[in-house]
Amino acid sequence: MVKQAIAWAESQRQVHLEQLKTLLSIPSVSTQVEHTSDIVRTANWLADHMRAIGLNEVSVQPTDRHPVVYGEWVQDSDAPTVLIYGHYDVQPAEPLALWDTPPFSPTVKNGNIYARGAADDKGQLFIHLKALEALFETAGRPPVNVKLLIEGEEEIGSPSLDKFVVDHQDMLSADISIISDSHILDVDKPALLYGLRGMCYMEIELQGPKQDLHSGSFGGAIHNPAQVLCQIVSALKDDQGRITIPGFYDRVLPLSDAERTALASVPFSEAQFRQEAGVRKTWGEAGYTVREQISARPTLDVNGLVSGYTGEGGKTIIPAWARAKVSMRLVADQDPEEIQQLFTQHVESLTPDTVELTLHNWGLAKPALIDRDIPEMQAAARAYERGFDAQPVFIREGGSIPVVTLLKETLGLDTILMGFGLPDDNIHGPNEKLHLENFYRGIETVIYFLDEYAQT
Amino acid sequence: MVKQAIAWAESQRQVHLEQLKTLLSIPSVSTQVEHTSDIVRTANWLADHMRAIGLNEVSVQPTDRHPVVYGEWVQDSDAPTVLIYGHYDVQPAEPLALWDTPPFSPTVKNGNIYARGAADDKGQLFIHLKALEALFETAGRPPVNVKLLIEGEEEIGSPSLDKFVVDHQDMLSADISIISDSHILDVDKPALLYGLRGMCYMEIELQGPKQDLHSGSFGGAIHNPAQVLCQIVSALKDDQGRITIPGFYDRVLPLSDAERTALASVPFSEAQFRQEAGVRKTWGEAGYTVREQISARPTLDVNGLVSGYTGEGGKTIIPAWARAKVSMRLVADQDPEEIQQLFTQHVESLTPDTVELTLHNWGLAKPALIDRDIPEMQAAARAYERGFDAQPVFIREGGSIPVVTLLKETLGLDTILMGFGLPDDNIHGPNEKLHLENFYRGIETVIYFLDEYAQT
Repeated sequence: MVKQAIAWAESQRQVHLEQLKTLLSIPSVSTQVEHTSDIVRTANWLADHMRAIGLNEVSVQPTDRHPVVYGEWVQDSDAPTVLIYGHYDVQPAEPLALWDTPPFSPTVKNGNIYARGAADDKGQLFIHLKALEALFETAGRPPVNVKLLIEGEEEIGSPSLDKFVVDHQDMLSADISIISDSHILDVDKPALLYGLRGMCYMEIELQGPKQDLHSGSFGGAIHNPAQVLCQIVSALKDDQGRITIPGFYDRVLPLSDAERTALASVPFSEAQFRQEAGVRKTWGEAGYTVREQISARPTLDVNGLVSGYTGEGGKTIIPAWARAKVSMRLVADQDPEEIQQLFTQHVESLTPDTVELTLHNWGLAKPALIDRDIPEMQAAARAYERGFDAQPVFIREGGSIPVVTLLKETLGLDTILMGFGLPDDNIHGPNEKLHLENFYRGIETVIYFLDEYAQT
Repeated sequence: MVKQAIAWAESQRQVHLEQLKTLLSIPSVSTQVEHTSDIVRTANWLADHMRAIGLNEVSVQPTDRHPVVYGEWVQDSDAPTVLIYGHYDVQPAEPLALWDTPPFSPTVKNGNIYARGAADDKGQLFIHLKALEALFETAGRPPVNVKLLIEGEEEIGSPSLDKFVVDHQDMLSADISIISDSHILDVDKPALLYGLRGMCYMEIELQGPKQDLHSGSFGGAIHNPAQVLCQIVSALKDDQGRITIPGFYDRVLPLSDAERTALASVPFSEAQFRQEAGVRKTWGEAGYTVREQISARPTLDVNGLVSGYTGEGGKTIIPAWARAKVSMRLVADQDPEEIQQLFTQHVESLTPDTVELTLHNWGLAKPALIDRDIPEMQAAARAYERGFDAQPVFIREGGSIPVVTLLKETLGLDTILMGFGLPDDNIHGPNEKLHLENFYRGIETVIYFLDEYAQT
């Protein structure tokens, strides 16, 4: 059944491109209230399209803010079920002046389609609809059961998704989930993302004197909260780049030789990394490569500091308070709540009784590590090989995709992160694009995946 | 001649008070351009008044901004010469809503006169004019030669004064200078200020990546400039409160047992100090009392910190840069330029080659320490004793009065800091006042001082 589906998809490329343009032309910006009706229009357009291609139980389900679009084909009790996740909302397009073509007038140029949402994520989620349509059109069905969960709040932090998933566990139950909302390395270098870092984001607040004091009158006998803050922050890391919070590394899974070798084989240029960052040299945890430091190892960064007088020139005060935002990227099997506790204990132990400490938490996310050897991952690898004529590499990323953890925690699902973007797609920036070759190969790769998965 | 002058001054109290009200009613705010004509009016009023009481060579001398008023009586080649410094400009009165009576409608209440500039410094400089007038009226001359240097830019940092003093060294030459622009401890506790701290104000700027980076993509392999800044700042002081800059203490004059005993005898309440600061406990250099820490010992304070994201919640960035303002209060014989050099060398040695360091200087001021045993100081002590019926204590202050250093450096003059304010005069704040008893006793004390000084 695959051959005909692939051939049909190829024959329909122009049609699919026009449909994609229609989808991309609706400005479904989730954070701007003036686009609320566009959000609704996009959800309805997707639901209509899903019904048209053959999905069942299609519905636009309200949440506290933007609706979820759901659809399924679940008619083969012998076959496994795939839950496909995507999001139809997009980032704001501003600053508009930096776009070469209008963000919501999709434009094909140099083999790319330019529009806000082309890669993140409307274009990539549409790949799944087109793959399913090809299978419905040629075989009357996909080779496995499928469910689609498409939200409209990803770019604002998915405030309604947790509740929605918890409230619809039966409806969403599946054997594996698949998300296309990431990128491969290059058009002929497919990649499967199997590791994402988690997060524990803290803020340290120290209160010293009740108000800013004149350093002439008080300087010398007051413990300066900005000075204390610097002492605490500097005591969080040693000169080898290791985090000094007791117990911090206890649950970190060691990198096996095999994994280190595999990671080392992923094309990566340190010179390019330095250039993108704009630094003369890198600096990180001793004993690990840059690639490992930014994806497979936990880290700690100061994200912000503020205290006292920050304007031009000098002001001779002892600040009343000082604050530092400190976030930690976590890897499997670190537990963000435990890390928050260890961080809290350590900072408390470092804080003298001359100042008052308050800690805030600004976010926790579990790290994700998908076993590369599970059959679904292997099926995805073979699908990429067939779709892109090249074996995919396995990569880990330094960031987080919270829905991966949500699906694991609530529904027990591992997620295959099957991206079809490219690193230079400018997601969130001006002139966002999707490479059309990746769009067409993506449709084929999803068809291959469903086929490969049916055979596992 | 003293007796008659004192008696005359006492007989003229009501007249002097009315004159003071007139002087205080002109809003000579130096920092607000809309008050430029008031500044000129005040300078002219003072010059007219100085001529009227008998001073010679009175002139209003232009500068790049606000004029200096000068006057003298130099007719006794056998007598020494006193240079009296004061300033006729005042701080802005805002916020006006917090004043109980209008700031430029001088109001007598509870034995005080309330007005902007009552204590700082129009009221205190007027004391000198009234003392001289009493001597002119009763003896036809003061017992020593006098010169008066009254500027109109003190509250904006005296930008023209350095040049004016350098350009008029012959005109201003004297044997001692006297300034009444500080306060005593209480109405029956006169005090002579003999030590002022100096200043070296630096800003550390660290540039890391060329722009803020996403901590998911780059975190782990980039030396975070905010983290580095914290390490540098925390390495400037040890846990005993000692500053760790090599050579920092080399020129600090040790406190003699006699001086420590004298300082310890000055009334000072640590409980009140803690309450004013709003701290549970003090913290400073080990081995010194709080009184010594805030006045007789050098110190280092972080005055401001800023880096990365400082708004509400979390933002996962590695900041491109980080800045800290760090000021050091210096004591005799520390040299601010040498301290700047030592600070620079130390911070450079602490900065790794992963970030770029820029240092800014926002001010240097030499510390001042007047020998308590010089005859002029002893004359001042005897004058206080006669004027206030109480022996003055010798105190050191934690702040700086830059003109003291200027007069020493340019004219070679030691300065007698003969304050007549009180600690609760609210200088720079709403409801500034001068205690009238201090005003009248001040006039007598200045008469006594000129008499005592003539006899040394």
